[in-house]
Amino acid sequence: MSDERRNELKAVFHPRSIAVVGASSDPRKSGAKWVAGLKAAGYSGAIYPVSAGGGTIGGLNIYTSLSAIPGDVEYVVASVPARSVLQLLDECIAKRARFVQFFTAGFSETGSSEGEALERDMLERAHRAGLRIIGPNCIGNFCPAAGIPLGPVPAGRTGMPGNVSFISQSGGIAGKLVEYGIARHIRFSKGISVGNCIDLDTSDFLDYFAHDEETRIIGAYLEGTRAGRRLFESLRKASAAKPTVILKGGRTEAGSAAARSHTGSLASSAPVWSAMLHQAGAIEVHNLEELADCLLLLQQLGPVRTRNVGIVGGLADGGGGISVSGSDACNDNGLTVPPLHSETKERLLDLIGEVGSILRNPVDVSPAQFRGLDTLCETLRVIASDDAIELLMIQEDVDIMHSFLGVEETRDINAFLARFPQETHTPLVVVLPGGSAESHRVEVEEQLLAAGIPVFPTMARAARAVALVSQRPA
Amino acid sequence: MSDERRNELKAVFHPRSIAVVGASSDPRKSGAKWVAGLKAAGYSGAIYPVSAGGGTIGGLNIYTSLSAIPGDVEYVVASVPARSVLQLLDECIAKRARFVQFFTAGFSETGSSEGEALERDMLERAHRAGLRIIGPNCIGNFCPAAGIPLGPVPAGRTGMPGNVSFISQSGGIAGKLVEYGIARHIRFSKGISVGNCIDLDTSDFLDYFAHDEETRIIGAYLEGTRAGRRLFESLRKASAAKPTVILKGGRTEAGSAAARSHTGSLASSAPVWSAMLHQAGAIEVHNLEELADCLLLLQQLGPVRTRNVGIVGGLADGGGGISVSGSDACNDNGLTVPPLHSETKERLLDLIGEVGSILRNPVDVSPAQFRGLDTLCETLRVIASDDAIELLMIQEDVDIMHSFLGVEETRDINAFLARFPQETHTPLVVVLPGGSAESHRVEVEEQLLAAGIPVFPTMARAARAVALVSQRPA
Repeated sequence: MSDERRNELKAVFHPRSIAVVGASSDPRKSGAKWVAGLKAAGYSGAIYPVSAGGGTIGGLNIYTSLSAIPGDVEYVVASVPARSVLQLLDECIAKRARFVQFFTAGFSETGSSEGEALERDMLERAHRAGLRIIGPNCIGNFCPAAGIPLGPVPAGRTGMPGNVSFISQSGGIAGKLVEYGIARHIRFSKGISVGNCIDLDTSDFLDYFAHDEETRIIGAYLEGTRAGRRLFESLRKASAAKPTVILKGGRTEAGSAAARSHTGSLASSAPVWSAMLHQAGAIEVHNLEELADCLLLLQQLGPVRTRNVGIVGGLADGGGGISVSGSDACNDNGLTVPPLHSETKERLLDLIGEVGSILRNPVDVSPAQFRGLDTLCETLRVIASDDAIELLMIQEDVDIMHSFLGVEETRDINAFLARFPQETHTPLVVVLPGGSAESHRVEVEEQLLAAGIPVFPTMARAARAVALVSQRPA
Repeated sequence: MSDERRNELKAVFHPRSIAVVGASSDPRKSGAKWVAGLKAAGYSGAIYPVSAGGGTIGGLNIYTSLSAIPGDVEYVVASVPARSVLQLLDECIAKRARFVQFFTAGFSETGSSEGEALERDMLERAHRAGLRIIGPNCIGNFCPAAGIPLGPVPAGRTGMPGNVSFISQSGGIAGKLVEYGIARHIRFSKGISVGNCIDLDTSDFLDYFAHDEETRIIGAYLEGTRAGRRLFESLRKASAAKPTVILKGGRTEAGSAAARSHTGSLASSAPVWSAMLHQAGAIEVHNLEELADCLLLLQQLGPVRTRNVGIVGGLADGGGGISVSGSDACNDNGLTVPPLHSETKERLLDLIGEVGSILRNPVDVSPAQFRGLDTLCETLRVIASDDAIELLMIQEDVDIMHSFLGVEETRDINAFLARFPQETHTPLVVVLPGGSAESHRVEVEEQLLAAGIPVFPTMARAARAVALVSQRPA
């Protein structure tokens, strides 16, 4: 990818001005929501609502056409019926816009020959004039740092800016990934919903993110491609540059049939995709939760390569059964739970004694907790310092801790855990399952996430994310 | 199991009186927490705290020994050091107690020959006198209807009584299952944490629950057994009588090693266990979340046998990618996503038109939503009425619905969904993922659960639960 082309795509995420065509004063219309979202998110460029009826929206003048806008238009968001797209393209060209993104659906994904013909027409007109198309059938660009929310979301929520960037062939998956991100402190640099990608496609954005200095981690949801070789090359280069996590939708017969109707993708078989992703050096995940889990883990801990895990199944009670299940979850995913060194066991014996406790790994720390917070903290430090383990996985059940220890002691323990990443070099993963103390659990999750600790809802998901990220070739 | 023996075990869950030995006036001690929990949960029998030092606790007199208690003692909760257990057993026998449950750990699970010898001694003394032991190394009985919470939990939370009963070799797993239950409206009849089960064991309670009229669904967490043939027979009979869901901890090498230290269980290999569970007609699950998911599904929908699933990936946006992923999740678990009948498609075409929508299954209902709530509801009714599908799975993203539809319309849609089970014979499963509108999501979850709808956090977990429960032989 030439520097020129890279600079071109930068303007997708940092356009100087955005026109929203189809933004009437009816707040229920998507175009109106787009305008409201840009304003709410603090987009600092010019916003130009456009609708034939004119009027105003949120204090902004609605222009009756693109040509009526006095200033330059760099980026056009089009929320118009399919029958109007060709005319709109001509208007974009006349206005010298650089990009147009089409929310509009009803093209090749319907399987109709008219839809396919319309896409060919659109592409031809745009190409001749050097106008680039995003979509159709997409919700387009996303850039928290630029104040651009994803899609027609009036509240304009973007979450904090960060260095995770994503590409999605599904607007819904992209939207849900952003919502997960906001809730779980995944901080995004950029995102793009590419839809049917008749012009700018997944490969273009993979190439761009591979070189983008603000992007450190890449995620993508793919359904299919019309240019497999090119996609492979882009994936290979992106994966070599940065951890790249891929969710392929339509792995199964039913999923593939649904994908055909969704984005018109002709999906290859699952083994072919898996082999391709593996060969490209990408991390393959199987559902949206795994995608979010891997992005979070990479953001919080960097590209870990872990095989040997230390497990602590509970901080209040013994956590014995949780430790057993956690060990199963690690082994299920190809991770090992090695015994601790004998010196570590001796130190633990001094600290917490032997009765009723498991000292090999997993470690039952409940006797330490009975001896007070200092002993519990020192016990966790000792476990983390054993070089037999490369990563420490702790399950904390806030509801059970409240029952056994009370609210205050639970808070003290979490204050210690939040300092843990600064105190030790051993990466820490916390498992914080749902339960009957939900509001407290959410508070703890916020605290630990803010401290740079990845938090997962179950041992199984934590183990899977660690294993998936660690599979990435060196 | 004789009627007499069944009646015997009934008193484990409905004892007329409970003595808690080791209940000093120090509220941090487990015994004191046990007493507080029984009071808070409204246990209506007599509670007798016992501790050598005497004093009072929560307004109750602390007796200095079991023999000092004036009334009969039917059930003893023992939170005493291992060195005191033999003496306590003698006191229980002298007091003619029927059951004693030992919280005390430090027996065979430590792998020491002293621990094993002590267990043999305990069992011999108890057997001679007809006293039954629960544990040691356990948190014992649980019965919401009797006001008996699980373990030393001062708040005494039990959740609403219901007809799910469970057995667990791990107190931590049992505790977490109850917390999940409280949060997810799994209503328990009875539960028992059996620990090392040197006397009353998993088979005894399986037999009891198989006949217990208040129990309709059975769940269990097992690590191992010393009497495989007997366990198999109990499982077979229980599974034939009621859906019986089994989580076997220690399936893997690491898990099995942890289980050895935890409850002293000598685990067989995973394939041997799987074959045994399958042959017994039990439903095998692989982690605690799957156990809770299956119990919830069975409670809300009964013993469904579903192969053909209808999917709706989103109620606000198209949900296209979610539909694709949901289809993958169904196929992954052996479920099919069959096309709808052509008459259904015609009715949908009338209702929502074709443009940009998927009408085959999964169904993209977003165009219906654009036409208003009535159209959306009717669309869901039409899909559910198609006899090609046996169960309808809807993903609802509350955060995204708030963005696209607003809070009020989201509320109206959920009011409709809550009426759905009364309006149609097609079982409904709702997927309600976490995200950035957590407090609203929890409200919706409560509402749907209360309406008898099983709610899951992801399509993958919903599909897995449906498939697992449906595998049960007819």
